[in-house]
Amino acid sequence: MDPARPAYLIGVDGGGSGCRVAIADATGCVLAEAAGGPGNVSADPDQAAANIRAALDEAAAGAGIGADALRHAHAHLGLAGVMSEAEGEAMAARFDFARLRVTDDRPTVLAGALGGADGVVLAIGTGSFIARSRDGAARFVGGWGFVCGDQASGAWLGRGAVEAALLAVDGLREHGQVTRAVLGSVGGDPAMLAHRSLVAPPGWFAEFAPLVVREAAQGDQAGREMMERGADYICRALERLGRGSGEAVCAFGGVSPHYAPYLPEDIRDCVVRPLGRAVDGALRLAARLADG
Amino acid sequence: MDPARPAYLIGVDGGGSGCRVAIADATGCVLAEAAGGPGNVSADPDQAAANIRAALDEAAAGAGIGADALRHAHAHLGLAGVMSEAEGEAMAARFDFARLRVTDDRPTVLAGALGGADGVVLAIGTGSFIARSRDGAARFVGGWGFVCGDQASGAWLGRGAVEAALLAVDGLREHGQVTRAVLGSVGGDPAMLAHRSLVAPPGWFAEFAPLVVREAAQGDQAGREMMERGADYICRALERLGRGSGEAVCAFGGVSPHYAPYLPEDIRDCVVRPLGRAVDGALRLAARLADG
Repeated sequence: MDPARPAYLIGVDGGGSGCRVAIADATGCVLAEAAGGPGNVSADPDQAAANIRAALDEAAAGAGIGADALRHAHAHLGLAGVMSEAEGEAMAARFDFARLRVTDDRPTVLAGALGGADGVVLAIGTGSFIARSRDGAARFVGGWGFVCGDQASGAWLGRGAVEAALLAVDGLREHGQVTRAVLGSVGGDPAMLAHRSLVAPPGWFAEFAPLVVREAAQGDQAGREMMERGADYICRALERLGRGSGEAVCAFGGVSPHYAPYLPEDIRDCVVRPLGRAVDGALRLAARLADG
Repeated sequence: MDPARPAYLIGVDGGGSGCRVAIADATGCVLAEAAGGPGNVSADPDQAAANIRAALDEAAAGAGIGADALRHAHAHLGLAGVMSEAEGEAMAARFDFARLRVTDDRPTVLAGALGGADGVVLAIGTGSFIARSRDGAARFVGGWGFVCGDQASGAWLGRGAVEAALLAVDGLREHGQVTRAVLGSVGGDPAMLAHRSLVAPPGWFAEFAPLVVREAAQGDQAGREMMERGADYICRALERLGRGSGEAVCAFGGVSPHYAPYLPEDIRDCVVRPLGRAVDGALRLAARLADG
Protein backbone atom coordinates (compact mmCIF):
# COMPACT_ATOMS: atom_id res chain seq x y z
CA MET A 1 0.00 0.00 0.00
CA ASP A 2 1.30 3.43 -0.93
CA PRO A 3 2.15 5.16 2.37
CA ALA A 4 1.54 8.54 0.72
CA ARG A 5 -2.14 7.58 0.35
CA PRO A 6 -3.50 6.65 3.76
CA ALA A 7 -6.46 4.33 4.30
CA TYR A 8 -7.30 6.24 7.46
CA LEU A 9 -6.53 9.48 9.26
CA ILE A 10 -6.04 9.58 13.00
CA GLY A 11 -6.10 12.66 15.19
CA VAL A 12 -5.19 12.65 18.88
CA ASP A 13 -5.53 15.45 21.43
CA GLY A 14 -3.78 14.67 24.70
CA GLY A 15 -4.03 16.85 27.80
CA GLY A 16 -3.67 16.61 31.54
CA SER A 17 -7.25 15.60 32.24
CA GLY A 18 -7.78 13.22 29.33
CA CYS A 19 -7.17 12.37 25.69
CA ARG A 20 -9.46 12.28 22.67
CA VAL A 21 -8.95 10.19 19.56
CA ALA A 22 -10.73 10.49 16.21
CA ILE A 23 -10.47 8.13 13.22
CA ALA A 24 -11.49 9.38 9.78
CA ASP A 25 -11.46 7.88 6.32
CA ALA A 26 -9.02 9.12 3.71
CA THR A 27 -11.38 11.97 2.78
CA GLY A 28 -11.47 13.27 6.39
CA CYS A 29 -14.96 11.95 7.16
CA VAL A 30 -14.95 10.95 10.86
CA LEU A 31 -15.78 7.28 11.45
CA ALA A 32 -15.47 7.13 15.24
CA GLU A 33 -14.18 8.96 18.29
CA ALA A 34 -13.16 7.86 21.77
CA ALA A 35 -11.98 9.53 24.95
CA GLY A 36 -9.47 8.19 27.45
CA GLY A 37 -7.19 9.00 30.37
CA PRO A 38 -4.55 11.76 30.46
CA GLY A 39 -2.37 12.08 27.38
CA ASN A 40 0.13 14.70 28.48
CA VAL A 41 3.70 13.56 28.14
CA SER A 42 5.36 15.45 30.98
CA ALA A 43 3.43 13.73 33.77
CA ASP A 44 3.85 10.09 32.73
CA PRO A 45 4.74 9.21 29.09
CA ASP A 46 4.19 5.48 29.61
CA GLN A 47 0.72 6.05 30.98
CA ALA A 48 -0.04 8.64 28.27
CA ALA A 49 0.89 6.14 25.54
CA ALA A 50 -1.21 3.43 27.19
CA ASN A 51 -4.21 5.76 27.53
CA ILE A 52 -3.96 6.85 23.90
CA ARG A 53 -3.63 3.24 22.73
CA ALA A 54 -6.72 2.23 24.71
CA ALA A 55 -8.71 5.10 23.21
CA LEU A 56 -7.43 4.15 19.74
CA ASP A 57 -8.60 0.57 20.23
CA GLU A 58 -12.01 1.78 21.35
CA ALA A 59 -12.34 4.14 18.38
CA ALA A 60 -11.19 1.44 15.95
CA ALA A 61 -13.79 -0.97 17.37
CA GLY A 62 -16.43 1.77 17.08
CA ALA A 63 -15.50 2.27 13.45
CA GLY A 64 -15.50 -1.46 12.78
CA ILE A 65 -11.81 -1.44 11.86
CA GLY A 66 -9.34 -4.09 12.90
CA ALA A 67 -6.53 -2.56 14.95
CA ASP A 68 -4.06 -3.90 12.38
CA ALA A 69 -5.60 -1.80 9.64
CA LEU A 70 -4.63 1.35 11.55
CA ARG A 71 -1.01 0.66 10.62
CA HIS A 72 -1.92 2.10 7.24
CA ALA A 73 -3.10 5.36 8.80
CA HIS A 74 -1.57 8.80 8.87
CA ALA A 75 -1.72 10.15 12.42
CA HIS A 76 -1.02 13.44 14.17
CA LEU A 77 -0.78 13.45 17.96
CA GLY A 78 -0.91 16.83 19.72
CA LEU A 79 0.14 16.14 23.29
CA ALA A 80 0.55 18.64 26.08
CA GLY A 81 4.01 18.54 27.58
CA VAL A 82 5.96 17.71 24.40
CA MET A 83 8.83 20.18 24.87
CA SER A 84 11.04 19.40 21.86
CA GLU A 85 11.19 17.56 18.53
CA ALA A 86 13.23 14.84 20.23
CA GLU A 87 10.48 14.29 22.80
CA GLY A 88 7.93 14.12 20.00
CA GLU A 89 10.03 11.57 18.12
CA ALA A 90 10.51 9.47 21.27
CA MET A 91 6.75 9.38 21.71
CA ALA A 92 6.22 8.62 18.01
CA ALA A 93 8.50 5.57 18.31
CA ARG A 94 5.90 3.99 20.60
CA PHE A 95 3.30 3.78 17.80
CA ASP A 96 3.13 2.00 14.47
CA PHE A 97 1.47 4.03 11.70
CA ALA A 98 2.36 4.56 8.04
CA ARG A 99 3.11 8.22 8.89
CA LEU A 100 3.07 9.82 12.30
CA ARG A 101 3.92 13.20 13.77
CA VAL A 102 3.84 14.06 17.46
CA THR A 103 3.85 17.71 18.53
CA ASP A 104 2.68 19.61 21.57
CA ASP A 105 -0.98 20.57 21.55
CA ARG A 106 -0.57 24.13 20.28
CA PRO A 107 -0.54 23.27 16.54
CA THR A 108 -3.57 21.00 16.91
CA VAL A 109 -5.52 23.62 18.90
CA LEU A 110 -4.67 26.22 16.25
CA ALA A 111 -5.65 24.00 13.31
CA GLY A 112 -8.88 23.00 15.06
CA ALA A 113 -9.91 26.47 16.18
CA LEU A 114 -9.25 28.08 12.79
CA GLY A 115 -10.28 25.13 10.63
CA GLY A 116 -6.91 25.23 8.97
CA ALA A 117 -7.23 28.88 7.89
CA ASP A 118 -5.11 31.83 8.97
CA GLY A 119 -6.11 33.76 12.06
CA VAL A 120 -5.49 34.58 15.71
CA VAL A 121 -6.29 32.26 18.62
CA LEU A 122 -6.53 32.99 22.32
CA ALA A 123 -6.19 29.52 23.81
CA ILE A 124 -7.03 30.11 27.45
CA GLY A 125 -8.31 27.28 29.58
CA THR A 126 -6.51 25.72 32.56
CA GLY A 127 -3.29 26.79 30.77
CA SER A 128 -2.77 29.39 28.08
CA PHE A 129 -1.06 30.39 24.87
CA ILE A 130 -1.78 32.93 22.15
CA ALA A 131 -1.05 32.26 18.50
CA ARG A 132 -1.32 33.66 15.01
CA SER A 133 -1.28 31.67 11.82
CA ARG A 134 -0.37 33.62 8.70
CA ASP A 135 0.28 32.18 5.26
CA GLY A 136 0.22 28.79 6.95
CA ALA A 137 3.07 29.61 9.36
CA ALA A 138 2.23 29.83 13.06
CA ARG A 139 3.79 32.01 15.74
CA PHE A 140 3.15 31.38 19.42
CA VAL A 141 3.35 33.47 22.58
CA GLY A 142 3.25 31.68 25.94
CA GLY A 143 2.49 28.05 26.57
CA TRP A 144 5.33 27.80 29.10
CA GLY A 145 3.28 26.16 31.84
CA PHE A 146 1.75 27.00 35.19
CA VAL A 147 4.72 27.90 37.38
CA CYS A 148 6.33 30.71 35.34
CA GLY A 149 3.91 31.15 32.45
CA ASP A 150 0.27 30.50 31.47
CA GLN A 151 -0.57 34.15 32.15
CA ALA A 152 -4.30 34.89 32.03
CA SER A 153 -5.14 31.15 32.30
CA GLY A 154 -7.65 29.60 34.66
CA ALA A 155 -4.90 28.20 36.88
CA TRP A 156 -3.19 31.61 36.88
CA LEU A 157 -6.45 33.31 37.93
CA GLY A 158 -6.95 30.73 40.65
CA ARG A 159 -3.43 31.10 42.00
CA GLY A 160 -3.91 34.86 42.06
CA ALA A 161 -7.12 34.35 44.04
CA VAL A 162 -5.35 32.14 46.60
CA GLU A 163 -2.48 34.62 46.91
CA ALA A 164 -4.98 37.46 47.42
CA ALA A 165 -6.80 35.41 50.08
CA LEU A 166 -3.57 34.83 52.03
CA LEU A 167 -2.62 38.51 51.75
CA ALA A 168 -6.07 39.38 53.11
CA VAL A 169 -5.53 36.98 56.03
CA ASP A 170 -2.29 38.84 56.77
CA GLY A 171 -4.09 42.18 56.58
CA LEU A 172 -2.08 43.27 53.54
CA ARG A 173 -5.15 43.73 51.38
CA GLU A 174 -8.92 44.11 51.86
CA HIS A 175 -11.09 41.02 51.97
CA GLY A 176 -13.69 40.72 49.21
CA GLN A 177 -16.02 38.12 47.75
CA VAL A 178 -13.21 36.27 45.97
CA THR A 179 -10.86 36.09 48.94
CA ARG A 180 -13.65 35.09 51.33
CA ALA A 181 -14.91 32.38 48.99
CA VAL A 182 -11.42 30.98 48.47
CA LEU A 183 -10.85 30.79 52.22
CA GLY A 184 -14.33 29.34 52.70
CA SER A 185 -13.48 26.52 50.31
CA VAL A 186 -11.03 25.14 52.89
CA GLY A 187 -13.20 25.81 55.94
CA GLY A 188 -11.64 29.22 56.57
CA ASP A 189 -8.24 27.76 57.52
CA PRO A 190 -5.42 29.70 55.82
CA ALA A 191 -2.81 27.11 56.82
CA MET A 192 -4.86 24.45 55.03
CA LEU A 193 -5.13 26.76 52.01
CA ALA A 194 -1.37 27.27 51.95
CA HIS A 195 -0.78 23.54 52.34
CA ARG A 196 -3.14 22.68 49.47
CA SER A 197 -1.48 25.33 47.28
CA LEU A 198 1.88 23.57 47.74
CA VAL A 199 0.70 20.17 46.55
CA ALA A 200 -2.25 20.86 44.22
CA PRO A 201 -2.06 20.49 40.42
CA PRO A 202 -2.97 23.41 38.08
CA GLY A 203 -6.49 22.00 37.74
CA TRP A 204 -7.16 22.66 41.43
CA PHE A 205 -6.34 26.34 41.00
CA ALA A 206 -8.35 26.56 37.78
CA GLU A 207 -11.46 25.53 39.71
CA PHE A 208 -11.40 29.01 41.28
CA ALA A 209 -11.45 30.70 37.85
CA PRO A 210 -15.26 30.77 37.47
CA LEU A 211 -15.44 32.46 40.89
CA VAL A 212 -12.94 35.10 39.79
CA VAL A 213 -14.79 35.69 36.50
CA ARG A 214 -18.18 35.95 38.23
CA GLU A 215 -17.14 38.19 41.12
CA ALA A 216 -15.00 40.42 38.91
CA ALA A 217 -18.15 41.10 36.87
CA GLN A 218 -19.83 42.10 40.15
CA GLY A 219 -17.04 44.55 40.91
CA ASP A 220 -14.89 42.52 43.30
CA GLN A 221 -11.54 44.28 43.61
CA ALA A 222 -9.21 41.26 43.58
CA GLY A 223 -11.19 39.67 40.76
CA ARG A 224 -11.12 42.83 38.64
CA GLU A 225 -7.38 43.27 39.18
CA MET A 226 -6.70 39.75 37.94
CA MET A 227 -8.99 39.99 34.90
CA GLU A 228 -7.42 43.34 33.99
CA ARG A 229 -3.89 41.96 34.33
CA GLY A 230 -4.87 38.97 32.20
CA ALA A 231 -6.41 41.23 29.57
CA ASP A 232 -3.30 43.39 29.55
CA TYR A 233 -1.19 40.30 28.87
CA ILE A 234 -3.52 39.30 26.03
CA CYS A 235 -3.27 42.77 24.47
CA ARG A 236 0.51 42.78 24.62
CA ALA A 237 0.65 39.29 23.09
CA LEU A 238 -1.70 40.26 20.24
CA GLU A 239 0.35 43.36 19.54
CA ARG A 240 3.53 41.31 19.54
CA LEU A 241 1.99 38.85 17.08
CA GLY A 242 1.17 41.76 14.80
CA ARG A 243 -2.59 41.29 14.79
CA GLY A 244 -4.14 43.73 12.31
CA SER A 245 -6.95 46.07 13.31
CA GLY A 246 -10.26 44.33 12.71
CA GLU A 247 -8.66 40.89 12.46
CA ALA A 248 -10.82 38.20 14.10
CA VAL A 249 -9.69 36.77 17.45
CA CYS A 250 -10.76 33.20 18.07
CA ALA A 251 -11.53 32.53 21.77
CA PHE A 252 -10.62 28.89 22.43
CA GLY A 253 -10.89 27.27 25.86
CA GLY A 254 -13.20 27.85 28.80
CA VAL A 255 -11.68 31.07 30.08
CA SER A 256 -10.86 33.22 27.03
CA PRO A 257 -14.44 34.37 26.21
CA HIS A 258 -14.67 35.90 29.69
CA TYR A 259 -11.88 38.37 28.95
CA ALA A 260 -13.98 40.11 26.27
CA PRO A 261 -15.37 42.81 28.60
CA TYR A 262 -11.84 43.72 29.71
CA LEU A 263 -10.40 44.05 26.21
CA PRO A 264 -10.29 47.25 24.12
CA GLU A 265 -13.25 47.68 21.78
CA ASP A 266 -11.25 46.86 18.66
CA ILE A 267 -10.41 43.43 20.02
CA ARG A 268 -13.69 42.79 21.85
CA ASP A 269 -15.71 43.38 18.69
CA CYS A 270 -13.59 40.87 16.79
CA VAL A 271 -13.91 37.90 19.18
CA VAL A 272 -15.26 34.80 17.44
CA ARG A 273 -15.89 31.22 18.50
CA PRO A 274 -13.57 28.39 17.47
CA LEU A 275 -14.57 26.30 14.46
CA GLY A 276 -13.45 23.02 15.98
CA ARG A 277 -11.66 21.19 18.73
CA ALA A 278 -8.02 20.25 19.06
CA VAL A 279 -8.79 16.70 17.92
CA ASP A 280 -10.34 18.12 14.74
CA GLY A 281 -7.14 20.06 14.22
CA ALA A 282 -5.11 16.89 14.74
CA LEU A 283 -7.10 15.19 11.96
CA ARG A 284 -6.44 18.14 9.65
CA LEU A 285 -2.72 17.94 10.36
CA ALA A 286 -2.80 14.16 9.83
CA ALA A 287 -4.32 14.77 6.40
CA ARG A 288 -1.38 17.02 5.55
CA LEU A 289 1.25 14.42 6.40
CA ALA A 290 1.22 12.96 2.89
CA ASP A 291 2.09 16.42 1.54
CA GLY A 292 4.89 17.07 3.99
CA MET B 1 13.31 12.75 88.28
CA ASP B 2 11.23 15.90 88.38
CA PRO B 3 10.05 16.54 84.79
CA ALA B 4 9.83 20.27 85.55
CA ARG B 5 13.63 20.33 85.99
CA PRO B 6 15.24 18.92 82.86
CA ALA B 7 18.65 17.28 82.82
CA TYR B 8 19.14 18.49 79.26
CA LEU B 9 17.70 20.92 76.75
CA ILE B 10 17.30 19.98 73.11
CA GLY B 11 16.71 22.35 70.24
CA VAL B 12 15.93 21.22 66.70
CA ASP B 13 15.69 23.30 63.53
CA GLY B 14 14.26 21.35 60.61
CA GLY B 15 14.07 22.68 57.07
CA GLY B 16 13.88 21.43 53.53
CA SER B 17 17.60 21.12 52.97
CA GLY B 18 18.58 19.72 56.37
CA CYS B 19 18.10 19.69 60.11
CA ARG B 20 20.28 20.90 62.98
CA VAL B 21 20.17 19.59 66.52
CA ALA B 22 21.74 21.12 69.65
CA ILE B 23 21.97 19.56 73.12
CA ALA B 24 22.56 21.84 76.10
CA ASP B 25 22.81 21.26 79.82
CA ALA B 26 20.08 22.53 82.11
CA THR B 27 21.68 25.98 82.23
CA GLY B 28 21.59 26.32 78.43
CA CYS B 29 25.30 25.68 77.89
CA VAL B 30 25.61 23.84 74.55
CA LEU B 31 27.27 20.41 74.88
CA ALA B 32 27.10 19.26 71.27
CA GLU B 33 25.51 19.92 67.90
CA ALA B 34 24.87 17.81 64.84
CA ALA B 35 23.41 18.30 61.38
CA GLY B 36 21.35 15.85 59.37
CA GLY B 37 19.02 15.37 56.43
CA PRO B 38 15.82 17.32 55.73
CA GLY B 39 13.54 17.94 58.70
CA ASN B 40 10.53 19.55 57.07
CA VAL B 41 7.32 17.74 57.79
CA SER B 42 5.35 18.43 54.61
CA ALA B 43 7.70 16.55 52.30
CA ASP B 44 8.08 13.29 54.23
CA PRO B 45 7.32 13.16 57.98
CA ASP B 46 8.73 9.64 58.40
CA GLN B 47 12.01 10.64 56.83
CA ALA B 48 12.07 13.91 58.78
CA ALA B 49 11.67 12.04 62.07
CA ALA B 50 14.38 9.56 61.07
CA ASN B 51 16.77 12.35 60.08
CA ILE B 52 16.19 14.22 63.32
CA ARG B 53 16.67 11.05 65.37
CA ALA B 54 19.94 10.30 63.60
CA ALA B 55 21.20 13.83 64.28
CA LEU B 56 20.07 13.51 67.91
CA ASP B 57 22.04 10.28 68.29
CA GLU B 58 25.11 11.93 66.79
CA ALA B 59 24.82 14.96 69.08
CA ALA B 60 24.26 12.75 72.13
CA ALA B 61 27.36 10.74 71.26
CA GLY B 62 29.30 13.98 70.79
CA ALA B 63 28.18 15.15 74.21
CA GLY B 64 29.01 11.77 75.77
CA ILE B 65 25.41 11.21 76.78
CA GLY B 66 23.61 7.88 76.49
CA ALA B 67 20.61 8.17 74.22
CA ASP B 68 18.45 6.98 77.13
CA ALA B 69 19.38 10.01 79.21
CA LEU B 70 17.77 12.26 76.61
CA ARG B 71 14.39 11.01 77.80
CA HIS B 72 14.85 13.42 80.68
CA ALA B 73 15.29 16.36 78.32
CA HIS B 74 13.02 19.26 77.44
CA ALA B 75 12.94 19.68 73.69
CA HIS B 76 11.57 22.17 71.19
CA LEU B 77 11.42 21.19 67.52
CA GLY B 78 10.84 23.96 64.98
CA LEU B 79 10.07 22.18 61.72
CA ALA B 80 9.16 23.74 58.39
CA GLY B 81 5.86 22.49 57.09
CA VAL B 82 4.07 22.07 60.43
CA MET B 83 0.74 23.63 59.45
CA SER B 84 -1.34 23.12 62.63
CA GLU B 85 -1.15 22.18 66.30
CA ALA B 86 -2.47 18.73 65.40
CA GLU B 87 0.41 18.20 62.99
CA GLY B 88 2.85 19.32 65.64
CA GLU B 89 1.35 16.91 68.17
CA ALA B 90 1.45 14.05 65.67
CA MET B 91 5.12 14.72 65.15
CA ALA B 92 5.71 15.02 68.90
CA ALA B 93 4.20 11.56 69.43
CA ARG B 94 7.15 10.10 67.54
CA PHE B 95 9.65 11.20 70.22
CA ASP B 96 10.15 10.40 73.88
CA PHE B 97 11.22 13.38 76.00
CA ALA B 98 10.12 14.58 79.42
CA ARG B 99 8.61 17.62 77.73
CA LEU B 100 8.36 18.30 74.02
CA ARG B 101 6.81 20.91 71.78
CA VAL B 102 6.77 20.83 67.99
CA THR B 103 5.97 24.01 66.05
CA ASP B 104 6.73 25.31 62.58
CA ASP B 105 10.08 27.05 62.25
CA ARG B 106 8.85 30.63 62.61
CA PRO B 107 8.91 30.74 66.43
CA THR B 108 12.38 29.21 66.56
CA VAL B 109 13.74 31.61 63.92
CA LEU B 110 12.25 34.52 65.86
CA ALA B 111 13.63 33.38 69.22
CA GLY B 112 17.04 32.75 67.69
CA ALA B 113 17.28 35.97 65.71
CA LEU B 114 16.18 38.18 68.62
CA GLY B 115 17.80 36.16 71.40
CA GLY B 116 14.45 35.89 73.10
CA ALA B 117 13.91 39.66 73.23
CA ASP B 118 11.19 41.70 71.53
CA GLY B 119 11.79 42.97 68.02
CA VAL B 120 11.13 42.72 64.33
CA VAL B 121 12.52 39.99 62.06
CA LEU B 122 12.69 39.83 58.28
CA ALA B 123 13.20 36.10 57.71
CA ILE B 124 13.97 35.95 53.99
CA GLY B 125 15.94 33.05 52.61
CA THR B 126 14.62 30.44 50.16
CA GLY B 127 11.20 31.14 51.73
CA SER B 128 10.02 34.15 53.72
CA PHE B 129 8.03 35.49 56.62
CA ILE B 130 8.07 38.72 58.59
CA ALA B 131 7.41 38.84 62.33
CA ARG B 132 7.25 41.06 65.33
CA SER B 133 7.57 39.97 68.93
CA ARG B 134 6.15 42.36 71.52
CA ASP B 135 5.76 41.71 75.22
CA GLY B 136 6.64 38.11 74.41
CA ALA B 137 3.74 37.64 71.96
CA ALA B 138 4.61 37.13 68.30
CA ARG B 139 2.67 38.15 65.22
CA PHE B 140 3.55 36.82 61.79
CA VAL B 141 2.96 37.93 58.23
CA GLY B 142 3.56 35.44 55.40
CA GLY B 143 5.15 32.04 55.66
CA TRP B 144 2.51 30.52 53.37
CA GLY B 145 4.95 28.79 51.04
CA PHE B 146 6.36 29.11 47.56
CA VAL B 147 3.33 28.74 45.30
CA CYS B 148 1.06 31.51 46.64
CA GLY B 149 3.23 33.19 49.26
CA ASP B 150 6.89 33.66 50.24
CA GLN B 151 6.90 37.12 48.66
CA ALA B 152 10.36 38.70 48.47
CA SER B 153 12.03 35.31 49.11
CA GLY B 154 14.90 33.84 47.13
CA ALA B 155 12.60 31.33 45.42
CA TRP B 156 10.17 34.16 44.63
CA LEU B 157 12.98 36.25 43.10
CA GLY B 158 14.13 33.26 41.08
CA ARG B 159 10.67 32.48 39.79
CA GLY B 160 10.27 36.11 38.78
CA ALA B 161 13.56 35.89 36.90
CA VAL B 162 12.44 32.77 35.02
CA GLU B 163 9.09 34.37 34.21
CA ALA B 164 10.87 37.49 32.92
CA ALA B 165 13.18 35.33 30.80
CA LEU B 166 10.24 33.55 29.16
CA LEU B 167 8.46 36.88 28.55
CA ALA B 168 11.65 38.16 26.91
CA VAL B 169 11.75 35.05 24.70
CA ASP B 170 8.20 35.87 23.61
CA GLY B 171 9.18 39.48 22.91
CA LEU B 172 6.88 40.80 25.65
CA ARG B 173 9.73 42.46 27.55
CA GLU B 174 13.32 43.57 26.85
CA HIS B 175 16.12 41.12 27.47
CA GLY B 176 18.63 42.13 30.13
CA GLN B 177 21.46 40.57 32.13
CA VAL B 178 19.11 38.61 34.38
CA THR B 179 16.95 37.18 31.62
CA ARG B 180 19.96 36.30 29.47
CA ALA B 181 21.75 34.60 32.37
CA VAL B 182 18.65 32.61 33.33
CA LEU B 183 18.26 31.38 29.75
CA GLY B 184 21.97 30.68 29.54
CA SER B 185 21.74 28.42 32.59
CA VAL B 186 19.75 25.94 30.48
CA GLY B 187 21.79 26.31 27.30
CA GLY B 188 19.52 29.02 25.90
CA ASP B 189 16.58 26.63 25.44
CA PRO B 190 13.33 28.23 26.70
CA ALA B 191 11.41 24.93 26.44
CA MET B 192 13.96 23.36 28.76
CA LEU B 193 13.61 26.34 31.12
CA ALA B 194 9.82 25.96 31.17
CA HIS B 195 10.12 22.22 31.73
CA ARG B 196 12.53 22.67 34.65
CA SER B 197 10.24 25.30 36.16
CA LEU B 198 7.38 22.77 36.27
CA VAL B 199 9.27 20.12 38.22
CA ALA B 200 11.92 22.02 40.22
CA PRO B 201 11.72 22.56 44.00
CA PRO B 202 11.86 26.10 45.49
CA GLY B 203 15.60 25.68 46.08
CA TRP B 204 16.22 25.53 42.31
CA PHE B 205 14.55 28.91 41.85
CA ALA B 206 16.38 30.37 44.85
CA GLU B 207 19.69 29.63 43.15
CA PHE B 208 18.89 32.52 40.77
CA ALA B 209 18.44 34.97 43.67
CA PRO B 210 22.14 36.01 43.90
CA LEU B 211 22.02 36.79 40.16
CA VAL B 212 18.94 38.98 40.66
CA VAL B 213 20.51 40.77 43.63
CA ARG B 214 23.79 41.37 41.80
CA GLU B 215 22.36 42.52 38.47
CA ALA B 216 19.71 44.69 40.13
CA ALA B 217 22.55 46.55 41.83
CA GLN B 218 24.06 47.07 38.35
CA GLY B 219 20.80 48.54 37.12
CA ASP B 220 19.24 45.53 35.35
CA GLN B 221 15.59 46.36 34.72
CA ALA B 222 14.01 42.97 35.56
CA GLY B 223 16.22 42.63 38.64
CA ARG B 224 15.37 46.11 39.91
CA GLU B 225 11.63 45.54 39.39
CA MET B 226 11.76 42.37 41.49
CA MET B 227 13.84 43.87 44.29
CA GLU B 228 11.52 46.90 44.39
CA ARG B 229 8.41 44.69 44.51
CA GLY B 230 9.98 42.63 47.28
CA ALA B 231 10.90 45.76 49.21
CA ASP B 232 7.36 47.08 48.80
CA TYR B 233 6.01 43.85 50.30
CA ILE B 234 8.43 44.16 53.21
CA CYS B 235 7.34 47.76 53.88
CA ARG B 236 3.66 46.86 53.86
CA ALA B 237 4.27 43.92 56.18
CA LEU B 238 6.25 46.06 58.64
CA GLU B 239 3.52 48.69 58.61
CA ARG B 240 0.90 46.03 59.21
CA LEU B 241 2.90 44.67 62.15
CA GLY B 242 2.96 48.16 63.64
CA ARG B 243 6.72 48.60 63.63
CA GLY B 244 7.60 51.84 65.37
CA SER B 245 9.82 54.45 63.75
CA GLY B 246 13.43 53.72 64.66
CA GLU B 247 12.67 50.20 65.82
CA ALA B 248 15.43 47.75 64.81
CA VAL B 249 14.75 45.31 61.96
CA CYS B 250 16.65 42.04 62.20
CA ALA B 251 17.62 40.68 58.77
CA PHE B 252 17.61 36.89 59.05
CA GLY B 253 18.35 34.56 56.12
CA GLY B 254 20.53 34.91 53.07
CA VAL B 255 18.36 37.29 51.08
CA SER B 256 16.98 39.86 53.53
CA PRO B 257 20.16 41.98 53.95
CA HIS B 258 20.16 42.62 50.19
CA TYR B 259 16.86 44.49 50.38
CA ALA B 260 18.42 47.27 52.47
CA PRO B 261 19.23 49.55 49.47
CA TYR B 262 15.61 49.32 48.30
CA LEU B 263 14.03 50.17 51.65
CA PRO B 264 13.11 53.65 52.89
CA GLU B 265 15.82 55.33 54.95
CA ASP B 266 13.96 54.88 58.24
CA ILE B 267 13.99 51.11 57.78
CA ARG B 268 17.37 50.81 56.08
CA ASP B 269 19.12 52.62 58.92
CA CYS B 270 17.60 50.23 61.45
CA VAL B 271 18.63 46.92 59.85
CA VAL B 272 20.62 44.76 62.27
CA ARG B 273 22.10 41.28 62.10
CA PRO B 274 20.46 38.32 63.87
CA LEU B 275 21.81 37.31 67.28
CA GLY B 276 21.52 33.61 66.65
CA ARG B 277 20.28 30.78 64.50
CA ALA B 278 16.95 28.97 64.53
CA VAL B 279 18.49 26.09 66.49
CA ASP B 280 19.58 28.59 69.17
CA GLY B 281 16.00 29.80 69.30
CA ALA B 282 14.77 26.21 69.62
CA LEU B 283 17.03 25.76 72.68
CA ARG B 284 15.64 28.96 74.20
CA LEU B 285 12.09 27.74 73.70
CA ALA B 286 13.01 24.33 75.15
CA ALA B 287 14.26 26.10 78.27
CA ARG B 288 10.86 27.76 78.64
CA LEU B 289 8.93 24.49 78.54
CA ALA B 290 9.21 23.98 82.28
CA ASP B 291 7.52 27.38 82.77
CA GLY B 292 4.71 26.74 80.29
